Amino acid sequence: MLRIGLLGCGRIGQVHARSIRALDGAQVVAVSDAMPQAAQALAAETGAEARDTAAILTAADVDAVVIGTPTDTHFDLIQGAARAGKAIFCEKPIDMSVDNIRACIAVVRGADVPFMTGFNRRFDPNFAALRARLRAGDIGAVELVTITSRDPAPPPLAYIERSGGLFRDMMIHDFDMARFLMAEEFTTLHAVGSALVDPDIGAAGDVDTAAVILTTGSGRICQISNSRRAAYGYDQRIEVHGARGMLRAENQLETTVEIATEAGFRCDPAQHFFLERYEAAYLAEMRAFLAVARGQAAPEPDITDGLRAQIMADAAAQSLATGLPVALEAG
Amino acid sequence: MLRIGLLGCGRIGQVHARSIRALDGAQVVAVSDAMPQAAQALAAETGAEARDTAAILTAADVDAVVIGTPTDTHFDLIQGAARAGKAIFCEKPIDMSVDNIRACIAVVRGADVPFMTGFNRRFDPNFAALRARLRAGDIGAVELVTITSRDPAPPPLAYIERSGGLFRDMMIHDFDMARFLMAEEFTTLHAVGSALVDPDIGAAGDVDTAAVILTTGSGRICQISNSRRAAYGYDQRIEVHGARGMLRAENQLETTVEIATEAGFRCDPAQHFFLERYEAAYLAEMRAFLAVARGQAAPEPDITDGLRAQIMADAAAQSLATGLPVALEAG
Amino acid sequence: MLRIGLLGCGRIGQVHARSIRALDGAQVVAVSDAMPQAAQALAAETGAEARDTAAILTAADVDAVVIGTPTDTHFDLIQGAARAGKAIFCEKPIDMSVDNIRACIAVVRGADVPFMTGFNRRFDPNFAALRARLRAGDIGAVELVTITSRDPAPPPLAYIERSGGLFRDMMIHDFDMARFLMAEEFTTLHAVGSALVDPDIGAAGDVDTAAVILTTGSGRICQISNSRRAAYGYDQRIEVHGARGMLRAENQLETTVEIATEAGFRCDPAQHFFLERYEAAYLAEMRAFLAVARGQAAPEPDITDGLRAQIMADAAAQSLATGLPVALEAG
Amino acid sequence: MLRIGLLGCGRIGQVHARSIRALDGAQVVAVSDAMPQAAQALAAETGAEARDTAAILTAADVDAVVIGTPTDTHFDLIQGAARAGKAIFCEKPIDMSVDNIRACIAVVRGADVPFMTGFNRRFDPNFAALRARLRAGDIGAVELVTITSRDPAPPPLAYIERSGGLFRDMMIHDFDMARFLMAEEFTTLHAVGSALVDPDIGAAGDVDTAAVILTTGSGRICQISNSRRAAYGYDQRIEVHGARGMLRAENQLETTVEIATEAGFRCDPAQHFFLERYEAAYLAEMRAFLAVARGQAAPEPDITDGLRAQIMADAAAQSLATGLPVALEAG
Repeated sequence: MLRIGLLGCGRIGQVHARSIRALDGAQVVAVSDAMPQAAQALAAETGAEARDTAAILTAADVDAVVIGTPTDTHFDLIQGAARAGKAIFCEKPIDMSVDNIRACIAVVRGADVPFMTGFNRRFDPNFAALRARLRAGDIGAVELVTITSRDPAPPPLAYIERSGGLFRDMMIHDFDMARFLMAEEFTTLHAVGSALVDPDIGAAGDVDTAAVILTTGSGRICQISNSRRAAYGYDQRIEVHGARGMLRAENQLETTVEIATEAGFRCDPAQHFFLERYEAAYLAEMRAFLAVARGQAAPEPDITDGLRAQIMADAAAQSLATGLPVALEAG
Repeated sequence: MLRIGLLGCGRIGQVHARSIRALDGAQVVAVSDAMPQAAQALAAETGAEARDTAAILTAADVDAVVIGTPTDTHFDLIQGAARAGKAIFCEKPIDMSVDNIRACIAVVRGADVPFMTGFNRRFDPNFAALRARLRAGDIGAVELVTITSRDPAPPPLAYIERSGGLFRDMMIHDFDMARFLMAEEFTTLHAVGSALVDPDIGAAGDVDTAAVILTTGSGRICQISNSRRAAYGYDQRIEVHGARGMLRAENQLETTVEIATEAGFRCDPAQHFFLERYEAAYLAEMRAFLAVARGQAAPEPDITDGLRAQIMADAAAQSLATGLPVALEAG
Repeated sequence: MLRIGLLGCGRIGQVHARSIRALDGAQVVAVSDAMPQAAQALAAETGAEARDTAAILTAADVDAVVIGTPTDTHFDLIQGAARAGKAIFCEKPIDMSVDNIRACIAVVRGADVPFMTGFNRRFDPNFAALRARLRAGDIGAVELVTITSRDPAPPPLAYIERSGGLFRDMMIHDFDMARFLMAEEFTTLHAVGSALVDPDIGAAGDVDTAAVILTTGSGRICQISNSRRAAYGYDQRIEVHGARGMLRAENQLETTVEIATEAGFRCDPAQHFFLERYEAAYLAEMRAFLAVARGQAAPEPDITDGLRAQIMADAAAQSLATGLPVALEAG
Repeated sequence: MLRIGLLGCGRIGQVHARSIRALDGAQVVAVSDAMPQAAQALAAETGAEARDTAAILTAADVDAVVIGTPTDTHFDLIQGAARAGKAIFCEKPIDMSVDNIRACIAVVRGADVPFMTGFNRRFDPNFAALRARLRAGDIGAVELVTITSRDPAPPPLAYIERSGGLFRDMMIHDFDMARFLMAEEFTTLHAVGSALVDPDIGAAGDVDTAAVILTTGSGRICQISNSRRAAYGYDQRIEVHGARGMLRAENQLETTVEIATEAGFRCDPAQHFFLERYEAAYLAEMRAFLAVARGQAAPEPDITDGLRAQIMADAAAQSLATGLPVALEAG
């Protein structure tokens, strides 16, 4: 039985707790949160113990930690857990500072602990199947990737202000997906963006609508577009063109029901947001982490995947600020 | 240059005139209609001459006739044209009386003229492609066919009253389609029906909603449903199940445009009615008839196809009246 | 905490055990099976106790029973559980004999215990949403229902021989669905069928391909087709036409991935069989039963729904045997 | 009767001749081509007279000219026709030189003749319907446009070498479409591209795979991607996001037939190439030009639309060469 310490009992922590309960061979033994009531509530629901965070990091009865706390706490928690020899699952972004992530990599490597980064979309059954077929050569060599990600509605302005901006908070998922799909690192990035959904987002120094072009050394291309608004639900699509055809993954709709009237044929909206759409992905992600923590599989995405995506997000912010393309550092 | 005499200048006659104009190697030389203005108008549009019907049947400058007049005139026109040695295209139904159709068959065979029956749906590019793939064995032996035909709205009651009823006026197309798809004659038929769309249709002795089950000697099955109402446009679909899979043909929508809003994803209605949906079919049908009239191809559907469909329509009316299945005559 | 006794630890019993574990406020306390190892295994997995069936029926620590044993045991178990005052969930069919079901109804009513019949498809999120929209009047009054159900492949012949035949084993689900969708009882039924998939099924006195037409007193129509074979996965579709349009529910595919090559655009097969397709339905069904057992909701589908479907299945078998339509008894 | 002089009897000239024949109130009276046989053939087919190009430009019996000759001849023909007072339809690109196009604009304005540029895609029924709904406000203000254009296969290398490159030959259509959809001019453009389909195209100094990001002064965004290869047919799609939802237009497939087998559900490829896909567009385009030539409508797209698209194509070539975004001239 793998014993898990869960750090952070907010929305995403609860998702992971539920996933662990549904999986065999693991249990959450300890939880912590800056808000004691949150920890108590999740402890009661899972049968775990609410403890101090620091105590969990070094607890003898904890084999692995799942970090779902605010981003600015990740740095210390990762270092503490690594030094205590725990297997680590950490939500994205690992840290807002690329230097800090590099420091974490050094500690994690020094401690030789497995580390998995929480890019949940790699585990979406649709995207995972698409990627498997890409790797199987179903459409030949990849030439052009188009990724569309749109949230149903903007988060509160207070969230936006602490988020690091659209590229680091939202498009970072798409940067990881672009790397997941393209079997070659990207070398240049050009970003554009504006505040079309809500001028207050612009006033806060961020954008809510953005597009990026990425290229690799051999000339392969990826287009990404993001928006904080989509009336028809959480829009999460991928389209990949290769030498012999196209693979694409469409949205999951709420049901398969269609109504036909004078207005035409109407299907349901897309599933509303990430909790619905990525429910299966979160479960598969935690299943993968349990295998990693047991030493049965290499972590994927690992900590360097977290670093690469952060480097790309920083580059996008820089490109937006300067209006110029940015060369991506090698690593 | 094949010279065509067009009998009947109403809606369907105009469709055929337009098709002939678009095809190479044929021209309408003479037209007639019970309403002289209609004949004059189509003559002006096509460059043909408006003549008496009887004169066209025997005209030396007419190689083939296209009969698009009211059903009760077909019997005499077919006999006249056959005796004059003209190739004949006749709209369905050939005649409301199976005995009359048999009499026509005798005359047509005696005169040895080619005769093609106007079951336009066989020439729909979708249905024709589906049938070609059936015959190519793409899904193995046929087991179950489902045909859905729904008009957008009922015709005027005056039309209904003269139509011979839903089975002879509307489902006759589906009976022919069922035979076109199933490589074996049907042996039993069971029909149900009611007036759900408009009680006046019921009062007129007809139904507006109906379903039929057909079976063949070897136990293959066909389901047909008809309605005089479909809010979302002319509904014309086929689904065929075979040993190795399914082939189906969906409706053609007005455009490929889709709108996504809070209400979901909405496509256009189906093309409104037969003139839009079967535009390509009518052209292909007339192309096929020109080849028949030139002696380059055997007529298909021929006059016996018209007979078989009428026998099935009569059987459906009988089944509805008695509430019992009907054994279909062999021919 | 509602305490459940689970009778029958086979495939469907395991599904229900898993559903109960995922739901709050209930637990399986006792399990039984004719094969002791099966009961032991499920007991170990759920933390329940393996007991004798008879002991569970009358156990003081059991509030409700879930019956997933072979059909020929249902009669005694229902009567025992009812007399012991337990809430009852029983898989379909309740019994192969309509008389026996009527006897069960008498006992259940006499004991005044809630009884829910396991027609899982009513709880499929797609079908449930479609029906809710029907009842909300989205397409007006229902005129024509078409239900398509095809298994991916025939069961073993030994299963077929004990199954009561396609109408009682397979189409019974569609009879219940037809009643669920149509707000009026059916009054006539006509069935056709044949053994096209496997002649051995025919030799065993059953059919593997069948179609039924049902009508109501006011002339509304339902078409059902069944087959024991569908190369492309478990085919479960509904289409309902009303005065103002159509509602339909399509299959759930394995993923949303589509590949486009020279051969065209290809999506995944339908989910393979009932365990995948109806996973969400089984969970919702058990959630509904927990509410029933707690007295918070009336059972739906109840025991008379089980009776009605069985009457229709018997009528279909009779219609197939005689080749004639059958009038359905009122109840 | 509007009398048309058709300059250029190649593939596109033949398309326009066929369109004019199908439309009322106009006829081709004279045709010319650098290859006399081509002119003779089209003359025979249309009933027109084969003449010298120069003679057609000034002929008293010609009201309007349709220019479908090689691009490098357009400059002289436009000037000659304008000075002779003819209405002009000219295929895109008007000229490879923006300066030359400006010179043509001066002459056309001086002569006060109507001039329509041949951007056929504006007349595609799907795209035209999408744009009408945009303008009707169906999804609110436009925020992000994504245009996908892929040819089924690269043209001969000899064609590529004379084409002006992918941006001027192929993406120019998408630049016009971007302007057609976005109710605001674009101010910046960034292009990337590479030769992934055929290294010989790269050796010839061109690219075969490319992506462009455009932005407007108010921050609206357009993404365009192009490829010279698409195994599944001519790929022509548009997706527009606005404040209240999305409008998109999918490809037209060859038929509506779908086959379902163990491999899943497969539809037909997209219509093969522009002659099939844009058949209806070419007819609608010529209908629009006839109205323009008769003075019944203003030309749209007009000569300045041709200029703007050429400016964007030049900017894309420059951006690709420098690796930097380009500010678009105002006009």
